[in-house]
Amino acid sequence: MGAIDWRVTAKDGEARSGLLSTRRSLIETPVFMPVGTQGSIKGVRFEWLEKEMDAQIILGNTYHLFLRPGPDLIRELGGLHRFTSWPRSFLTDSGGFQVFSLTDLRKLTEDGVEFRSHIDGSKRFLSPEISMEIQAALGSEIVMAFDECPPGDAGYEATKKSLELTIRWAQRSKSRFDRLQAEGADKGYLDPISHSEKLSGEQALFGIIQGAGHFDLRDKSLEQTVEIGFDGYAIGGLSVGEEKSVMYGILQHLAPKMPQDAPRYLMGVGTPEDLIEAVSRGIDMFDCVMPTRNGRTGSVFTSRGKLNIRNARFAADTSPLDDDCNCSVCRRYSRAYLRHLYQAGEMTAATLISHHNLAFYLDTMRRVRQSIKSGEFSRFKKDFLTRLSEGESG
Amino acid sequence: MGAIDWRVTAKDGEARSGLLSTRRSLIETPVFMPVGTQGSIKGVRFEWLEKEMDAQIILGNTYHLFLRPGPDLIRELGGLHRFTSWPRSFLTDSGGFQVFSLTDLRKLTEDGVEFRSHIDGSKRFLSPEISMEIQAALGSEIVMAFDECPPGDAGYEATKKSLELTIRWAQRSKSRFDRLQAEGADKGYLDPISHSEKLSGEQALFGIIQGAGHFDLRDKSLEQTVEIGFDGYAIGGLSVGEEKSVMYGILQHLAPKMPQDAPRYLMGVGTPEDLIEAVSRGIDMFDCVMPTRNGRTGSVFTSRGKLNIRNARFAADTSPLDDDCNCSVCRRYSRAYLRHLYQAGEMTAATLISHHNLAFYLDTMRRVRQSIKSGEFSRFKKDFLTRLSEGESG
Repeated sequence: MGAIDWRVTAKDGEARSGLLSTRRSLIETPVFMPVGTQGSIKGVRFEWLEKEMDAQIILGNTYHLFLRPGPDLIRELGGLHRFTSWPRSFLTDSGGFQVFSLTDLRKLTEDGVEFRSHIDGSKRFLSPEISMEIQAALGSEIVMAFDECPPGDAGYEATKKSLELTIRWAQRSKSRFDRLQAEGADKGYLDPISHSEKLSGEQALFGIIQGAGHFDLRDKSLEQTVEIGFDGYAIGGLSVGEEKSVMYGILQHLAPKMPQDAPRYLMGVGTPEDLIEAVSRGIDMFDCVMPTRNGRTGSVFTSRGKLNIRNARFAADTSPLDDDCNCSVCRRYSRAYLRHLYQAGEMTAATLISHHNLAFYLDTMRRVRQSIKSGEFSRFKKDFLTRLSEGESG
Repeated sequence: MGAIDWRVTAKDGEARSGLLSTRRSLIETPVFMPVGTQGSIKGVRFEWLEKEMDAQIILGNTYHLFLRPGPDLIRELGGLHRFTSWPRSFLTDSGGFQVFSLTDLRKLTEDGVEFRSHIDGSKRFLSPEISMEIQAALGSEIVMAFDECPPGDAGYEATKKSLELTIRWAQRSKSRFDRLQAEGADKGYLDPISHSEKLSGEQALFGIIQGAGHFDLRDKSLEQTVEIGFDGYAIGGLSVGEEKSVMYGILQHLAPKMPQDAPRYLMGVGTPEDLIEAVSRGIDMFDCVMPTRNGRTGSVFTSRGKLNIRNARFAADTSPLDDDCNCSVCRRYSRAYLRHLYQAGEMTAATLISHHNLAFYLDTMRRVRQSIKSGEFSRFKKDFLTRLSEGESG
């Protein structure tokens, strides 16, 4: 019995639709996972995510939850699901990416990474073993291996050295993870719900492929990661400042070589265009802070591109954020009202725009899946990207 | 035909339950009106207010909406209901209180008050006539006369002089208001919905009684305000820093003398205790920013008194904010989780606590009404206040 089950339901070119079963939910892929960094989707109540958007999986950040409220408290309170009340699936990242992007002071050794908390400056330490222990306390359905994320501009040798460390850390992650499952440390353990009789009730572990923009390093990373063996495979180190063409090139090169029978997860990506382009190259899972982060600055994703609600031309605009969106924000509130709320400093502006942005992302993925299942993904992609580039006022 | 209809449904001592019909909703009194200063209840989406809390009337602030987005825009977009999407009743204040409490630079004349906008420092002017014009553009169901609010520590002579001005302004408010209704300037005009065949579809106008803590000045203000004739009567100038005993004394003295057949509105009050004490003295309507303002600082109203969610003793507390509350926040989220969200700076902490606080206020008023109707208000009051003083950890 596996911790998760994933099977392809349709293919259209390299694009795949699939069904991912975890102990807590049935997830149709390709899927976008809203980011719940600190155990909450910024500005959007779980009620909306569950009932309106039908989100089946969200992401939690190990780095943030490690620092606050800390794994001991979450373990004591019965894991992240019980602590937050989110009943469906969680994927937790390993903490690696945040350590390398959020903190200045850090010391990297073979053993792990010492850093200073961005909250109080205290000295902390993360290693593959500690990351696995924290993620067991969190009890997420999908655990990520602890990896090193080299800077986007790292050269070939530095990248090579880094991914070799990532491979050794992946092995250590796997060993510790397996032991934690055997010991019953996973606080999210659950007798699988009825649809998942094949599932073990344990956590799943994903490996992460690094190698920046270097095809041969990506190949090497893929080969050695698959050799260790994981429940799913993620691509890290993209969308970190490189050209779009580099990202798409790597995806085109790498994704088709990844195991066909496991989900492929592109970490931290991206814009609606990025998602469509990546799906067309064979990616199944995504997460990104953009819908909520942009929402807080008044930046709106629509089917005709982005708009910023602060713009004076929306002052008397009684149309919804996106004419083609059926979310509860677009059904009720006008651009004029949302602009007013934003200009007036009302936090409801951020919550409503974040809500719409997430709804737009999730609805886009629903349409992506439908088009793959009906064999019309290529046409969908062309139409979607054309529309997106029209400009929202077009 | 009147603009509103109000009738007593039950009395218990001085406490009254009643039914207030406006062109847009049926409002059971005593009622607490959530404050939507800038056309939005801070942190709480209208959807929750409508569906869960069943709020039938909310407040909008003329001062804030005058400055931003401005009455011209709201008029152009068809009034405050269409602009904000709130379909039920609005009460708008006159702007007077905010001018006198929010702005430093102001020049008071017989004609009105010149002040500087707290937003951009621009010079603005409000008078009884302008306030009526703005409130007609907003199209609220209940319009408040433009009054002067003297400082809480004003002496007898200053208070007397101020309330005489308020009376003259009340007359001017009434004249301008009547003309605006006749001219069809009211942007909220609505053929009354079926339950309200007796209603004109126009706005209602409330007069405001001033006089600080002086019984004879309150009497004089009441007499002259009633002489002008309004659809309802408000008590202003309380809860502005005076002792609780002064407020309760004035209410006890004044409320029973107010017209029996019109709603009595105590402006800007107050704590749950204040509401109960005021109801027992004959008050029917309330508004206050406390539930949402406190919510944003982590301060929680419960049936056993206030608590502050930041307190470390809630770190591992899996109980809801209030064991006796049935709101969607209390049904789902723990104190431990809400404390974490607050400490982590997540805006969802503010939205969830504000939601609970408002739900607690509205539920308390529901229970107040029920107890009046069943003739058990005195016992309810005693039990409620005893419980409130127990301390939430009791």
